[in-house]
Amino acid sequence: MASPVDPVSRLEAVEEIKGLKARYFRCLDSKDWEGFAAVFAPDAVMDMAEAAGGDPLPDATSRGPGDIAAYVRRSVEGMVTVHHGHMPEITVTGDTTAEGIWAMEDLLRWPGPDGTTGGLHGFGHYHETYEKVGGRWLITSIRLTRLRVDMF
Amino acid sequence: MASPVDPVSRLEAVEEIKGLKARYFRCLDSKDWEGFAAVFAPDAVMDMAEAAGGDPLPDATSRGPGDIAAYVRRSVEGMVTVHHGHMPEITVTGDTTAEGIWAMEDLLRWPGPDGTTGGLHGFGHYHETYEKVGGRWLITSIRLTRLRVDMF
Amino acid sequence: MASPVDPVSRLEAVEEIKGLKARYFRCLDSKDWEGFAAVFAPDAVMDMAEAAGGDPLPDATSRGPGDIAAYVRRSVEGMVTVHHGHMPEITVTGDTTAEGIWAMEDLLRWPGPDGTTGGLHGFGHYHETYEKVGGRWLITSIRLTRLRVDMF
Repeated sequence: MASPVDPVSRLEAVEEIKGLKARYFRCLDSKDWEGFAAVFAPDAVMDMAEAAGGDPLPDATSRGPGDIAAYVRRSVEGMVTVHHGHMPEITVTGDTTAEGIWAMEDLLRWPGPDGTTGGLHGFGHYHETYEKVGGRWLITSIRLTRLRVDMF
Repeated sequence: MASPVDPVSRLEAVEEIKGLKARYFRCLDSKDWEGFAAVFAPDAVMDMAEAAGGDPLPDATSRGPGDIAAYVRRSVEGMVTVHHGHMPEITVTGDTTAEGIWAMEDLLRWPGPDGTTGGLHGFGHYHETYEKVGGRWLITSIRLTRLRVDMF
Repeated sequence: MASPVDPVSRLEAVEEIKGLKARYFRCLDSKDWEGFAAVFAPDAVMDMAEAAGGDPLPDATSRGPGDIAAYVRRSVEGMVTVHHGHMPEITVTGDTTAEGIWAMEDLLRWPGPDGTTGGLHGFGHYHETYEKVGGRWLITSIRLTRLRVDMF
């Protein structure tokens, strides 16, 4: 459990990473795609193959802030979305590196045929890594696993 | 990103503000109105105009701990309520001042006619400011914005 | 509000206890019973008498990591479960002792007759105590109270 980082720096890193992930969620649900892209490192990788909860989705890996934001934007086009993160387990592994697991819940609603709506209510975990670049923590990788997905 | 406050004091402020907001939620849902009033500064302002999710509500601004607690108490009279806060972004702006954004979800259920029940399931963000008064952080302003409100 | 513990140690304790509770939830929902047992102290006590939301459940007290894990495992056998914790209020009462309150939400689904499913959606609070044993924080007691339980 010994950390190579002094206690105050480690606590600051944990708090900054929590704030980073909070911006991830707020920008996603308020459709602020510029703000959303800004939480990722230049070489970040996102793996959403498990997002639908059943068979792995094809072409669900995106790379770099621009492509990741474009991928997510396409995925939630026309939907009202709510994403919440809970109960982080963040491990600071060095002065500029960290990893984390977050419980998550998402609620998506989309327009259906004839004025109806469809939706998805999902639960799972984000598995992430982080790097401090130029004094700011950024997400370097993010992978979603699911406990359960309900369609309605 | 430089803060005028030293790292440990800033971390303590963030933790105390999280505890303050936790009391806000617990006292609200357990209907402890004395405890609820105690989280607000004497000159605090609450703006709940967006609470219902549609047109702005009239007369939705209340001021001071007593009036705020009375306003909220009237709003949830006879209901079972669940309010959760998530993913805070707290910025400590000085030794005794801070601001924060919280993702939120609320679930209200009220008695309907003929033994039925009605309810509201809402999602949004609290936009808040805080001040440290006499050694304790208090809420000085709170405004709710909505991502979505479902009535049932 | 004065604490007997220095600020950095207190902040570290709070962060470690949050990580401990995050493991509690993740191991519970991923059915990692060995990891789940490992968050409890040797003399830990769990009281789930209010779990169903109505009359107190009989025989709802379990003691020690092994019995607690066995009790919870039996309680969720065959179910998909999602448990989330929110808004902790953690008070560090000494170098090796602390207490906490967590808002919680749980969503259980179980197989019903003829291929149907039944479920429970609950809300409440965990009331807990912690002790630092051999350099690691562990749960020494946990009691669930309910705001509301919906069966579906």
